[in-house]
Amino acid sequence: MSVTRERIVSASADLLRRQGYAGTGVKQIVAAAGAPFGSLYHFFPGGKEQLGAETIRWSGRMYGLLLPLILDASPDLVTGVRAFFATPADQMEASGYADGCPIATVALEASSASERLRQACADVFDSWIKAGTGRFTAAGLPDAAARQLTIGLLAALEGAFVLSRALRRTEPLKVAGEQAAAAVATALAA
Amino acid sequence: MSVTRERIVSASADLLRRQGYAGTGVKQIVAAAGAPFGSLYHFFPGGKEQLGAETIRWSGRMYGLLLPLILDASPDLVTGVRAFFATPADQMEASGYADGCPIATVALEASSASERLRQACADVFDSWIKAGTGRFTAAGLPDAAARQLTIGLLAALEGAFVLSRALRRTEPLKVAGEQAAAAVATALAA
Repeated sequence: MSVTRERIVSASADLLRRQGYAGTGVKQIVAAAGAPFGSLYHFFPGGKEQLGAETIRWSGRMYGLLLPLILDASPDLVTGVRAFFATPADQMEASGYADGCPIATVALEASSASERLRQACADVFDSWIKAGTGRFTAAGLPDAAARQLTIGLLAALEGAFVLSRALRRTEPLKVAGEQAAAAVATALAA
Repeated sequence: MSVTRERIVSASADLLRRQGYAGTGVKQIVAAAGAPFGSLYHFFPGGKEQLGAETIRWSGRMYGLLLPLILDASPDLVTGVRAFFATPADQMEASGYADGCPIATVALEASSASERLRQACADVFDSWIKAGTGRFTAAGLPDAAARQLTIGLLAALEGAFVLSRALRRTEPLKVAGEQAAAAVATALAA
């Protein structure tokens, strides 16, 4: 990816998660990226919708790297899952509760308006579910149990983001993180 | 509330949860309500932001009635909590995965842009947490445990909406519902 193209996608990711797809103009994205306006249609001939879909897929890959990073840095899976909620809780607080999940805002707001954006969000969520399931099967869980556990953790994280963002407190992320850690401990002990 | 005013708020609720605040124009709301355009500023002199905040609070009250309705219709709390996920799963499927939570879309997308909208979302979530906590303390749980259980259930439901909406399948709501029911059963047995 060219440096300018990557700057545009990165700026787009920041804006989409804070204010959604409809509320973000391409001029604002290009200005935030410090890129000439003409570069937008040079790199994204499909315009805002193409940029939006690529932003979702790029954010999905970036955040997809976080799960193995956090788990590998933790002494065990239960501690790792707890950290997987505590890390974004700290980041949300530091950002004044502006930075949540880079996928969820667009998933809720643009899934009816753009099949291309909805499909990008769906592909990201499916890739996260697959990666998490692989982690838990590697720890000895059967496939179906690992998948259900992953979906539950992901739902809890996404929902805690929604609550924490509106309430401007980390309580939902912390409570959900403790419950997620307990669910993983129970599943591994079974 | 006058009939026209209520029609505008109800139409606004449908549109906000499907396409968010930024993606919804006041002309579209008034047209969907079958109301004359002038009635918007007659009833909502504060314009779109006032209407948006009132829509969130109205939707919050409407959905706040669902928890006691569903729980009272169920033979026990565990069955009731399972139904609390199964009912919206059926509704989402019937709506082609367009109808999720009427608060979450705006909470994610407009919390940075409008303090008035964010506060409305926060007040709704706090009222739901309070109501759920009251239900679980009435069932014998200590205050702190009841609050944590409620926040966990609400996060799971909100996150499952995000996933189901993008993935266009009820799996996340069903998986989260089973886990929520199990969490309630464990808490009540403890």
